[in-house]
Amino acid sequence: MKSYVYTKPFTIEMQERPLLEPKSGQVRLKVKAVSICGSDIGGFKGTSAMRVAPLVMGHEFAGIVDAVGEGADVSLVGARVGVHPTIACGTCPECESGLPNICNNRFTPGTTMPAGPWDGAFAEYVVVPQDRLIRIPDVISFEEAAVFEPASVALRGAKKMGDIKGKTVAVFGAGPIGLLTMQSARIMGAATIIAIDIVDERLAMAKKFSGASTTINSSKEDAVAKARDATNGLGVDASADCVGIATSLNTCIKMTKNDGIVSMVGMASAQIDGFEYKECVTREIHLQGSYCYTNEPREIADLLVAGKFDFKSLITSVVPMSQVQKKMEELVFGSSTDVKVILVD
Amino acid sequence: MKSYVYTKPFTIEMQERPLLEPKSGQVRLKVKAVSICGSDIGGFKGTSAMRVAPLVMGHEFAGIVDAVGEGADVSLVGARVGVHPTIACGTCPECESGLPNICNNRFTPGTTMPAGPWDGAFAEYVVVPQDRLIRIPDVISFEEAAVFEPASVALRGAKKMGDIKGKTVAVFGAGPIGLLTMQSARIMGAATIIAIDIVDERLAMAKKFSGASTTINSSKEDAVAKARDATNGLGVDASADCVGIATSLNTCIKMTKNDGIVSMVGMASAQIDGFEYKECVTREIHLQGSYCYTNEPREIADLLVAGKFDFKSLITSVVPMSQVQKKMEELVFGSSTDVKVILVD
Repeated sequence: MKSYVYTKPFTIEMQERPLLEPKSGQVRLKVKAVSICGSDIGGFKGTSAMRVAPLVMGHEFAGIVDAVGEGADVSLVGARVGVHPTIACGTCPECESGLPNICNNRFTPGTTMPAGPWDGAFAEYVVVPQDRLIRIPDVISFEEAAVFEPASVALRGAKKMGDIKGKTVAVFGAGPIGLLTMQSARIMGAATIIAIDIVDERLAMAKKFSGASTTINSSKEDAVAKARDATNGLGVDASADCVGIATSLNTCIKMTKNDGIVSMVGMASAQIDGFEYKECVTREIHLQGSYCYTNEPREIADLLVAGKFDFKSLITSVVPMSQVQKKMEELVFGSSTDVKVILVD
Repeated sequence: MKSYVYTKPFTIEMQERPLLEPKSGQVRLKVKAVSICGSDIGGFKGTSAMRVAPLVMGHEFAGIVDAVGEGADVSLVGARVGVHPTIACGTCPECESGLPNICNNRFTPGTTMPAGPWDGAFAEYVVVPQDRLIRIPDVISFEEAAVFEPASVALRGAKKMGDIKGKTVAVFGAGPIGLLTMQSARIMGAATIIAIDIVDERLAMAKKFSGASTTINSSKEDAVAKARDATNGLGVDASADCVGIATSLNTCIKMTKNDGIVSMVGMASAQIDGFEYKECVTREIHLQGSYCYTNEPREIADLLVAGKFDFKSLITSVVPMSQVQKKMEELVFGSSTDVKVILVD
């Protein structure tokens, strides 16, 4: 089978590998579509602790069940599926509390977790436990199903803003996660969505198909002042930082009302300098980390079938998987304005 | 009346001022006891934006009602009282949401708030609205009643750790707020309290009368490792940072379990560098600002009467108010090991 292996920084090379055999309880998928995540780009650059070479990256994917291991359901062969890519232990306190997303023993295909690596979907085939499958109807394309994963991150990030029905929220970052967080906030009934980014084209996308009514280019305008102007000076009810740098976090804090919630979703920084700590204390701000997803991938599938999400507008490139190295270079070194890039077989 | 006025950094001078007259709805108290807060020390040093000279500091106080203004209850004259020192507007969205503590229009005696200054209790007399009084029975001394305020900060900070009944919590900082936060956690039913500080004498106090079962001197031991050892590697259920510097906040984050709560109470820093942001995201940590108090001062009074708190052990000095300058200098420049200093008439 063809595997596109991350072997060293800035290098993904095609290797012919033996066909993976699904173990007990696992299924093998023929990969039909795999989406490139920002974290894969970080991996490609050699800056991610969660991508240790040699590794087949790719954790946002969909395909067709090709074979099943011992004890798995044979009738699944041929099924069109998306994948919930968290492979948790199921027995630790976190798993038993319904939080497999923060299970310390989890695996994720396409990443190197503390528990170990698991080859992902930048390949002809990938194996996952049968219980990770999400069957998709014909109305959902494989490309869309490959977006279940980032959409799940976004839906959870939006949920962490609390009950936002009828409320005003701000989302900092109009990349894939930010745009999908806005769509999630719209689905959750937010009355007003304020989008903040530094790229006008992305802000236009936020307004056009992700439900933002106000957009702020924070490199040109005072984002905090504009958001406060839009809320009678009070600040937004909740905000989501879908970037994760000092500017985005502090802007979210400053534009959020007293006793409001800031959902922390983006992970561009490990540590943040100049964190506006005292303001969080004196205004009783809630800062809430949001990581991955628990049941969200299945919710996402249902919401997409119901026509609530628009994934198609996010997908700006669909290219053959064989071009992954070239596309990665373009994303890292070029002037790509892509939002979501999907690799297909 | 004698007023001890903060006139410039490191200077509090006695001034004879006209006797304050209570306005409509206000009462005048003869100050019997006023406690020195860490923020007063910051004010004395000239480093607090909330202490602008000339100002009579002192927001932790108790006394006897001496006179009442128009419309106030004349029968209060002679009553022994503690004081809830938040004078909120009562009409803004925060006040209407039950959060007068973060009312943007509030006054606090002894401080310079955005709404303006209000002279405090480093004086023979102070005026406050009648509804700020908390009547105290004879079993409670004025010195103890002067501690209602920091105890209220601590009780709210402990509440922000969530439902800690039967849980393991960590409190970083064994100063007055930290020790009172431990006492509050004990009252709320925490099963295990871990105290962290860099002063052994304070850790001994934490163990002796504030309910800590484990103490960690973080200048000598690896606090995170020790707290995780004490919790089967999982981390504490919740923690409270009663200091507010990078070390205390990050230590709280690192020793708190996945999906756990960090209550942010201490305010030693405005901004914090090196904030462990990504760890909060990937472990879905809740960071919760806790500021002042809403109904806590009245709860504190009841809990103290019921024998739940021990304020007496915290009070390490009781000195005449006329010595405030000398005591402040000792606290700032000397080798004072005081925990709580009370000035009396």
